[in-house]
Amino acid sequence: MVLQLAGRLADRGDVPLGDHCPIDRALHALANRPAILLLREVFYGVSRFDPLVKRVGVTEAVAAQRLRELVAIGVLAKRPYREPGQRTRHEYVLTDRGRELSPIVLGLLSWGETHLPDDRGSVAMTHAGCDAAVRISLHCEAGHELREDEVVVTGNTAEGG
Amino acid sequence: MVLQLAGRLADRGDVPLGDHCPIDRALHALANRPAILLLREVFYGVSRFDPLVKRVGVTEAVAAQRLRELVAIGVLAKRPYREPGQRTRHEYVLTDRGRELSPIVLGLLSWGETHLPDDRGSVAMTHAGCDAAVRISLHCEAGHELREDEVVVTGNTAEGG
Repeated sequence: MVLQLAGRLADRGDVPLGDHCPIDRALHALANRPAILLLREVFYGVSRFDPLVKRVGVTEAVAAQRLRELVAIGVLAKRPYREPGQRTRHEYVLTDRGRELSPIVLGLLSWGETHLPDDRGSVAMTHAGCDAAVRISLHCEAGHELREDEVVVTGNTAEGG
Repeated sequence: MVLQLAGRLADRGDVPLGDHCPIDRALHALANRPAILLLREVFYGVSRFDPLVKRVGVTEAVAAQRLRELVAIGVLAKRPYREPGQRTRHEYVLTDRGRELSPIVLGLLSWGETHLPDDRGSVAMTHAGCDAAVRISLHCEAGHELREDEVVVTGNTAEGG
């Protein structure tokens, strides 16, 4: 069995969903690999432009563009800081909206570690409280853990996606 | 408080992680927007090339290339089929490895729907058994639900990412 997206969109015929679909809107917003890797570094506690550029390994132009986009969609916020004797600069901090991306970022980490292992080393994700391994899982608000095939995704209007 | 990636990689200095990091490997593998949108359509139950191309709204060349990559990393499998009077063709089905991407795909859906809403319609994700809303959450194997700041991510060797 498999998760099956349901609702009228499953039977919509061969019509592109375009930005009617929130998955597509999220992908447009998060854009691409550099954006996610910049977020990763912010999760690592890095906030300033120069180390972000170096740790992600992109050009300054690419980093500046992606950071602008991440600020524009409210995932990062710019915060001024000033070193003694220097001009005011800005650092980047996660917003609540950015923190809510953590299941996606950690989902990529978990999936990559499981299915694309690296013989040079491994990454473990554990619960600080009890050291048990962390999983990204599907739960409903009534408290049930769900198998994938128990999720129903429904578009609520003719245009919903 | 915020999830903070921990371990020696947090203090590694301004060294690019490159493909030492499973997040980066996962992003390389999943490549980009068309790849995820093709997966979305397979989750919608579409398996054949022509409808996949149309429903994602990309060129045949882009779809063919992304599908090849998704097969190469074992997320999709090709399965032969034959309509009466026609040559054998292939359809694309999810593997277990592909199904394990569902928290990421549904995480994008949930985040996009919450933070980038579309006034033309909305998408709901519910538990087939009880109709309660579905959330993508962080749990540990001991059964605890975790806040983001309770997750510790540790690289297990000098090179781990």
